[in-house]
Amino acid sequence: MKFSRGRNFLFRIPEGKEFLSAVNEFAKKHNVLIGTISAIGTLKNPKIGYFEEEKGQYKVIELEGTYELVSALGNISIKDDEPFAHIHVSLGDKEGKLFGGHLIEGEVFVAEVYIQELLGEPLIRKPRENGLALWDAEEE
Amino acid sequence: MKFSRGRNFLFRIPEGKEFLSAVNEFAKKHNVLIGTISAIGTLKNPKIGYFEEEKGQYKVIELEGTYELVSALGNISIKDDEPFAHIHVSLGDKEGKLFGGHLIEGEVFVAEVYIQELLGEPLIRKPRENGLALWDAEEE
Amino acid sequence: MKFSRGRNFLFRIPEGKEFLSAVNEFAKKHNVLIGTISAIGTLKNPKIGYFEEEKGQYKVIELEGTYELVSALGNISIKDDEPFAHIHVSLGDKEGKLFGGHLIEGEVFVAEVYIQELLGEPLIRKPRENGLALWDAEEE
Repeated sequence: MKFSRGRNFLFRIPEGKEFLSAVNEFAKKHNVLIGTISAIGTLKNPKIGYFEEEKGQYKVIELEGTYELVSALGNISIKDDEPFAHIHVSLGDKEGKLFGGHLIEGEVFVAEVYIQELLGEPLIRKPRENGLALWDAEEE
Repeated sequence: MKFSRGRNFLFRIPEGKEFLSAVNEFAKKHNVLIGTISAIGTLKNPKIGYFEEEKGQYKVIELEGTYELVSALGNISIKDDEPFAHIHVSLGDKEGKLFGGHLIEGEVFVAEVYIQELLGEPLIRKPRENGLALWDAEEE
Repeated sequence: MKFSRGRNFLFRIPEGKEFLSAVNEFAKKHNVLIGTISAIGTLKNPKIGYFEEEKGQYKVIELEGTYELVSALGNISIKDDEPFAHIHVSLGDKEGKLFGGHLIEGEVFVAEVYIQELLGEPLIRKPRENGLALWDAEEE
């Protein structure tokens, strides 16, 4: 779907906040209904998910300690009538080894976030039979 | 090179499609000649490449099974007179371990893609002696 | 903080340059004071950092050889009165295994870089007690 451009936000989430809920609160407060997100920083005790198709749910992977947030990439759209951020993250440990998946939660040590608002027709996540909430796929 | 901004597309590629060719078809259909791409989702049986300079070609790494598409990052420019997407990906397995490189192919389970069109002078990939097709480098 | 959009640059850094200083020089030359960065390519002998909170400094991880630059993600703001790029990278080895963290340096084999300028009030990094130079956090 095609969108026009809205506002651009570049900001730091305060230390101690939970990253994903802070992004969702930011979107709600500023009324960002559609958008893209990218971020870097450092997260503590992040939990990530791997979607198990056969079970129709995420397997939760709990990482202990402090990780470089090497990349957070995702988007904002509407789910259950509210702005909802879907974010995947890549996380680096002390040896530089990377772990990652679907972000479930993570405590912010540092988070530098870019949100780019998009404007247009509502982009809505709808529950699917496979357990995921997805936009309609782009028609051919 | 400096570009002005064109259209913004945020969309989901249908399940079952091959990711890279779907992006290339989208660019062709919508006449996106220059742009940037980012995406997250889930891919099946992705193939990634590692460029071996001494051989002047990519070593192909075939990953089996389903992987979280933790990041897809890249750009669109012209190669052989057509829009061409160059994309690198980071992929997470069931344990949260990450693999990645130059995307060769991957079957879409979920793919949420953002394409930002850029407008300006043609940006063209030209074959190089080292085996790669590259833009002219930015002058000092 | 909210910003308006400035210029858009998509370009290739010449082979042999050091990636991070090339980005900083580009920002300085073109007077990009605020912005976002993303890039893909291939880097040689990259050095990455993992921030050790208890020591208030980065542990340096030196990677030898050639790595796919799977993702470079970051931003530009002002530090010590000059444009300063803060970039995190994900790097893939010959087997597709990923390493990453805070980019310290890396020699460019290929680097395709997108810089999006933002315009607005100065965004400034200030030294913190924890050893990092950070923007003021977004107010609630």
